[in-house]
Amino acid sequence: MLRESLLHLHEGSHALRLLPGETRSRMLHVLADAITANTPHLLDENARDYEEHASTLSPALAQRLKLTHEKLQTLVAGLRELEITEDPIGSILARTELDDRLVLDKISVPLGVVCVIFESRPDVLHQVLGLALRSGNGVVLKGGREATHSNRAMVRIAQEALRHEGLPCEWFSLIEGRESVEELLHYDDLVDLVIPRGSNEFVRHIQETSRIPVLGHASGVCHLYVHPSADLAQALEVIVDAKTHYPAACNAVETVLVDSTIALTFLPVLFDTLSKVNVRVRGCATTASIINLSDLVSDEEWSTEYSALTLAVRVVDSLDEAVRHINRFGSHHTDGILARDKGACERFASAVDSASVFTNCSTRFADGYRFGLGAEIGIGTGKIHARGPVGMEGLLTYKYILRGDGQIVATYSGEHAKSFSFKKIARS
Amino acid sequence: MLRESLLHLHEGSHALRLLPGETRSRMLHVLADAITANTPHLLDENARDYEEHASTLSPALAQRLKLTHEKLQTLVAGLRELEITEDPIGSILARTELDDRLVLDKISVPLGVVCVIFESRPDVLHQVLGLALRSGNGVVLKGGREATHSNRAMVRIAQEALRHEGLPCEWFSLIEGRESVEELLHYDDLVDLVIPRGSNEFVRHIQETSRIPVLGHASGVCHLYVHPSADLAQALEVIVDAKTHYPAACNAVETVLVDSTIALTFLPVLFDTLSKVNVRVRGCATTASIINLSDLVSDEEWSTEYSALTLAVRVVDSLDEAVRHINRFGSHHTDGILARDKGACERFASAVDSASVFTNCSTRFADGYRFGLGAEIGIGTGKIHARGPVGMEGLLTYKYILRGDGQIVATYSGEHAKSFSFKKIARS
Repeated sequence: MLRESLLHLHEGSHALRLLPGETRSRMLHVLADAITANTPHLLDENARDYEEHASTLSPALAQRLKLTHEKLQTLVAGLRELEITEDPIGSILARTELDDRLVLDKISVPLGVVCVIFESRPDVLHQVLGLALRSGNGVVLKGGREATHSNRAMVRIAQEALRHEGLPCEWFSLIEGRESVEELLHYDDLVDLVIPRGSNEFVRHIQETSRIPVLGHASGVCHLYVHPSADLAQALEVIVDAKTHYPAACNAVETVLVDSTIALTFLPVLFDTLSKVNVRVRGCATTASIINLSDLVSDEEWSTEYSALTLAVRVVDSLDEAVRHINRFGSHHTDGILARDKGACERFASAVDSASVFTNCSTRFADGYRFGLGAEIGIGTGKIHARGPVGMEGLLTYKYILRGDGQIVATYSGEHAKSFSFKKIARS
Repeated sequence: MLRESLLHLHEGSHALRLLPGETRSRMLHVLADAITANTPHLLDENARDYEEHASTLSPALAQRLKLTHEKLQTLVAGLRELEITEDPIGSILARTELDDRLVLDKISVPLGVVCVIFESRPDVLHQVLGLALRSGNGVVLKGGREATHSNRAMVRIAQEALRHEGLPCEWFSLIEGRESVEELLHYDDLVDLVIPRGSNEFVRHIQETSRIPVLGHASGVCHLYVHPSADLAQALEVIVDAKTHYPAACNAVETVLVDSTIALTFLPVLFDTLSKVNVRVRGCATTASIINLSDLVSDEEWSTEYSALTLAVRVVDSLDEAVRHINRFGSHHTDGILARDKGACERFASAVDSASVFTNCSTRFADGYRFGLGAEIGIGTGKIHARGPVGMEGLLTYKYILRGDGQIVATYSGEHAKSFSFKKIARS
């Protein structure tokens, strides 16, 4: 049943990629109009979800579940922006003349079908639909149970609006229930990428069970290393921002590494500053002895993502030791150094094996919007495909098109082989 | 034991990526010199392998096993070329100013550690070492049992030459035995990419069992579609080249789709031409009725990779039917159309979901060297990471480096949020 409908969606995605960019722009326009026209209905349906579930959710999640006029307006603005964004499909990434009338193009194409799994926020649904449309991808949407009425309404509105204009809507669908996800994860012939945006355990489960490539991060164990050359007042400000601005975010700092040269002067000030903003500090033995802590961090605990106002602090003997700690205990998400010494900054940036490495700024900048990538579809900590904060490019791949005039390989082989010219014509 | 040595190699790869490009160039120079100086020894060791195994190998494999002066000279020339190739590490792929003194770079970095599994050809070993060195990657080499003496000699020579010059050699190692590969496939924390270049079954086995990303192709079921507008004489020439030039290659054609409009005139000529070059033809019912064949292809058999002088032929009613056949039965490797109608060519190129799509030329052009990519490390049929024929870029990923001056996210949030400038400074 699910497989049947995925086969149908797979075909729909093939049809979508053949539509001209202008048609997909028009579809974005229709979606935006539909949301504006149906705002009262969407708010009603969302109110049903809120009534049923808000009391069982954390305040933060309840906040995310609730749709408002403003949220829908932001969503519509995002779709209008995508409508006029340059079509990313068919860009020539490289062009090489192999010989007369034998030209090789490397062009951008959609991945095919992606599955996006999200929680709580029903406005994410149309944002994902918009990105999929702009990039020519089929998309399977899986929202949280708590947003069932909202998600169904969002999808129904999109389907009806597109159908009403005679535009295709076979390229997306909503699935419900954990079992559906589990089943979908088997169909690596029909789904090209899974983007889970949920709890760490859930992402890890998907990474471990699916044969479909996964774009995501199971955890965000981010570090800041305070170098002896750091501007200490600035370091304090950055650490407080990175820990307290949004402690539940994956790019919040979890461990601060302090160089031993400055530990005696810096740690007491750091501890005071953090206490004032209600951050609980845990530490290594050296830290504990300097600021009189009883809460020691054991070796296995250095990989902990607290997602709360708790910070682990460790004293390290050198930049290299800081790098080793980060590469061993971190999650390759985002790690930073605070230092005035430019050489130290560059050495750190080269040696730390993470998707994002920062010098002298808050780890919280690791975000698709703040990176100027437009809407973010996820943050990846793997090395294959898209890495770090990922915008629309994460939904694209490339293909080679070789246009000839009857050439055969025999001409270019053997004793009297003709030579290739390999003339680079373009590289965007 | 293997895990221990992989941990060591993993550390070695971290050290390698920190070496300046010139040092890695020097290492390439040392490797090339070492091969030249040790050519007699390498030929001796290779002769032992040849004596022990040549009789049990197919002539083609025996040919690949045998090292010659010429093969070693070609290898040395390749290493000298890599020595002067621009270093691919640290290229700025994009630079964006987010705000004053807050600049985001996206730069190319090595993947980390790759495992390359190859058969028979011992000269591949140093070619892979060279590519790994140029791209700053650690590499685990796994050669075929039949080349044991040759591979060991190649690795020993490289280690001794580097050590003699005080250069590191902890970034590569040779593993032996199928069990070692099976064990390695579990260590997705230590190996970033597996590149298997072996039999289809072996590649499929690795793809199905490993959690490490795999760059490769389990099969190459390539198609040519003859459109009604095709230059038929040219079509015959291209089909013969694609089938007979090297039938065992993954980019040889396996199925020819003939448009029904021209089937009556074209099929008999095609059949005659193929018979003269000893190609056995199998076909669909329509084909069989036109050229009087008894060897019918069943539905499941359309995905067969013959790797031999056998060709499947099917009559299709339209370009769209050809595309559907290819997307359903093909392996997303390389597929082509033969047509004078440019519109038909472009429609085919957009609609066929393969890594390489060709118009009016032989499928055999799908190859890293012929694409002008330099040495090929593999051909990928997946969509994630590198796709199609893959050169050095398949060994690279990117990281973001954000250089600030104490900026915190709080400044850019909330009611009095400062705006980002998002000024694109460079895009290579």
